[in-house]
Amino acid sequence: MKPSALPIQASEGANPSTPRHLCMPEDSRKRAARRLKIARGHLDSIVTMLDNPAVYCVDVLRQIKAVQGALSGAGEVVLRGHLEAHVTTAHERGDSIELIEELMEALKYT
Amino acid sequence: MKPSALPIQASEGANPSTPRHLCMPEDSRKRAARRLKIARGHLDSIVTMLDNPAVYCVDVLRQIKAVQGALSGAGEVVLRGHLEAHVTTAHERGDSIELIEELMEALKYT
Amino acid sequence: MKPSALPIQASEGANPSTPRHLCMPEDSRKRAARRLKIARGHLDSIVTMLDNPAVYCVDVLRQIKAVQGALSGAGEVVLRGHLEAHVTTAHERGDSIELIEELMEALKYT
Amino acid sequence: MKPSALPIQASEGANPSTPRHLCMPEDSRKRAARRLKIARGHLDSIVTMLDNPAVYCVDVLRQIKAVQGALSGAGEVVLRGHLEAHVTTAHERGDSIELIEELMEALKYT
Repeated sequence: MKPSALPIQASEGANPSTPRHLCMPEDSRKRAARRLKIARGHLDSIVTMLDNPAVYCVDVLRQIKAVQGALSGAGEVVLRGHLEAHVTTAHERGDSIELIEELMEALKYT
Repeated sequence: MKPSALPIQASEGANPSTPRHLCMPEDSRKRAARRLKIARGHLDSIVTMLDNPAVYCVDVLRQIKAVQGALSGAGEVVLRGHLEAHVTTAHERGDSIELIEELMEALKYT
Repeated sequence: MKPSALPIQASEGANPSTPRHLCMPEDSRKRAARRLKIARGHLDSIVTMLDNPAVYCVDVLRQIKAVQGALSGAGEVVLRGHLEAHVTTAHERGDSIELIEELMEALKYT
Repeated sequence: MKPSALPIQASEGANPSTPRHLCMPEDSRKRAARRLKIARGHLDSIVTMLDNPAVYCVDVLRQIKAVQGALSGAGEVVLRGHLEAHVTTAHERGDSIELIEELMEALKYT
């Protein structure tokens, strides 16, 4: 399957109960991936840090917070792309109820 | 330097301005490392997920939240170890003020 | 001005730079008000609690968290109403960009 | 019972199963009360705002976040007082385990 920038497309692998499938906009997909890779590198460095028996708790806490901040940033990229590509057009497509339901659920644990 | 389970020890590499150095308890250090490695594996799988142009925004959001939850769990392990090993004994050691200051700062962005 | 359940209406008092004005759906407005009044009652009881010199810190912390949870619940009511009434129809109205911008900003500090 | 600034005191009304009772330091009790009263005033003004049918969702969301921020500020005052008066001295008093347990629980939903 060729990558597509169209927000809506039939997905071959989609569950039969959801014949229409909304795809993440390519731009936010790539930007989120880039940010998550940076977060992964940061997470790697915390794991290495923890090999050192002289590491200090508060330094580890700070690094964990920094990675959480990076993940929030990636989440914002994804959310923004979702709002732009799918939520603002939901009324036209007729799937507002389900989109709001799943979005409220996904935002719950922010 | 040999790994030590003692919460307080002189650290050779410590900054000269902080001659005394509090070390993370070995148990919380190992448990936090284990959890962070699991979070890293999860993060890897989100990066892979994002290679698929048919990926759906809300699925990515949910996975990012799951990793943030895992990081919070690791942070709780570190915080608990810090409270046990260092904060509850701060008055005896005489460094309460600085420990509270840095802890409040580190918890700020929870 | 008579109360209106219409999500879009010209507001007399609106800033001239925003001639069109989106109004909160009546249902979410009333439900949010009800929840906020409950939160206010709870907040009152914490203020009273703090008059007692024998009050314990952690009990106060727990009560503050409870009120924060109530406020989050009220915020969810408002957000859901906004998504339903305004965001899902933004593409049709043509104000997607500004709605997303302000929503991302408002969600930032969740 | 006369108000006392002592962090530890026997509380007449305390549960018999917890004969010793830790009291909130007077300074943080007063400062937290002051902040909570400000938050309450702010909350009142949101309730009034919601009487206006022309109110806009995002404005309400922003105000709710502002009150949540004020509550977090009050919570920080309480937490700092608790750390200073009770947690840093827990090892000497011998109640570290229970203090950490309840603090971790109370911080969980930050």
